[in-house]
Amino acid sequence: MSSTTSLESMKEQMVPENEVEQVRLLNGVEDSYEGIIVEIKEHMDSRNFVPILRASISQWKQQGKKGVWIKLPIEFSNLVNPVVQEGFRYHHAEPEYLMLVRWLPNSPDTLPANASHRVGIGAFIVNNKREVLVIQENSGGFKGTGVWKLPTGVVNEGEDICEAAIREVKEETGIEAEFIEILAFRQSHHAFFGKSDLFFVCMLQPHSFNIRKQDSEVEAAQWMPIEDYLNQPYNKEHQLFQYVAEICKTKSEGDYVGFPAIPIATASNKKIYLYFNNRDFNRL
Amino acid sequence: MSSTTSLESMKEQMVPENEVEQVRLLNGVEDSYEGIIVEIKEHMDSRNFVPILRASISQWKQQGKKGVWIKLPIEFSNLVNPVVQEGFRYHHAEPEYLMLVRWLPNSPDTLPANASHRVGIGAFIVNNKREVLVIQENSGGFKGTGVWKLPTGVVNEGEDICEAAIREVKEETGIEAEFIEILAFRQSHHAFFGKSDLFFVCMLQPHSFNIRKQDSEVEAAQWMPIEDYLNQPYNKEHQLFQYVAEICKTKSEGDYVGFPAIPIATASNKKIYLYFNNRDFNRL
Repeated sequence: MSSTTSLESMKEQMVPENEVEQVRLLNGVEDSYEGIIVEIKEHMDSRNFVPILRASISQWKQQGKKGVWIKLPIEFSNLVNPVVQEGFRYHHAEPEYLMLVRWLPNSPDTLPANASHRVGIGAFIVNNKREVLVIQENSGGFKGTGVWKLPTGVVNEGEDICEAAIREVKEETGIEAEFIEILAFRQSHHAFFGKSDLFFVCMLQPHSFNIRKQDSEVEAAQWMPIEDYLNQPYNKEHQLFQYVAEICKTKSEGDYVGFPAIPIATASNKKIYLYFNNRDFNRL
Repeated sequence: MSSTTSLESMKEQMVPENEVEQVRLLNGVEDSYEGIIVEIKEHMDSRNFVPILRASISQWKQQGKKGVWIKLPIEFSNLVNPVVQEGFRYHHAEPEYLMLVRWLPNSPDTLPANASHRVGIGAFIVNNKREVLVIQENSGGFKGTGVWKLPTGVVNEGEDICEAAIREVKEETGIEAEFIEILAFRQSHHAFFGKSDLFFVCMLQPHSFNIRKQDSEVEAAQWMPIEDYLNQPYNKEHQLFQYVAEICKTKSEGDYVGFPAIPIATASNKKIYLYFNNRDFNRL
């Protein structure tokens, strides 16, 4: 797409002649909502790019297209401003690219929203002495507070909640464990750059017991009698923490049932887990 | 920040004299992870901006700052390319702004990830004749398939799952309903521009019964005998749909217990719900 082109050559396209270079158009892939997705793959000077974009938009309008998506890898950031000047807005960004979008019809925009939530886990693990695995953090809001808390972490994009819980416990404390079930989850808002947040309290079964703590994030780690964990003043003063601690204690004592992770077969061989109360489900 | 400035004037800042204009620096707010957050609020020409950014980075390095965040409203998209050229990468974007970030130390980057998940709901609602509220969609993958499905929708940023379920049912079918509990949820990946997806199956209790369907998204809506819903060939052929339909049927027949939404008091008056099995919790 590096050839010289212009709005003039576009007009001339209407009466093509051999000596007139025709304007190039952007190659797009159609989506299932009458939209078009364009990924820029070559460097272009913005002076060359703008007439091509304008001609493409003109064609897509004639074709009755609705949403036009332009994926701009970060190495082509010189084109961000020209695309915005042509009426596009930001949709989302990842480290390596920016996605811009423009709704062509006059009707109200039905474009899908950006990802809205971050997802985190906390891991409740008890040994056979009714001691719970707890840590103190060396950064963030709990730094220096002396509060012993469950190991926690962020679920990565593409990672299952049940896998994230196992990974975080291993990373922070060195303990090998098996996922049992989700005991509870909470949703909160405006947690991080305006995004919402889902946090899943997971029950795990330990398969090893010798703690090797991660130095970069963890100040201290230990097995703590469950009553001592529960009775920390911080937990007493914060209703959310008190509920979570009480639910964990209830689980450790009796037959509280949460949602285990049931793997589901899909036609596309995607890995999907369904989390539900399979004790009640199987009993009936 | 519109005054002319340059790298030269920055060097001259070391030996300030009255006649030498000192370079301006960007104003940032410190975060709790030794980082700095800058929000650009005025138009600047990139030739003026780059020396100011370079001088600011130099100062932040001296101060031992780690992550530097630059929030660029879309009206200042002329600065995206210059900021990228100074070593920043994209972090996330919303319609009205782009957030860029650069990690200053030589140590590995511990910057938080972007929002990773979209969240959706499906609503299971039964009337007193054991009929379930179902719809056919007029766009997307189910268009034209004849499959009767639960009303579904996307949970907005800042919206509670329990509220989203009530809102979507009202929008799509006109039915007024009350949230009872989460029956199950599934996590899947690579669902939408590479993002992961959480989908919560919610049980609702209807408070009205006359359907007024939304024309823009809904082809048809009706109350359908629960056995007919369950026995649709599509549900039989797709394990995920079969599980969900069976869980809904189990719930309608007996004492399957899911996770109701329990409001939690917080110091900051934020609205938080904790979802858990409160029957087992209260019984013990």
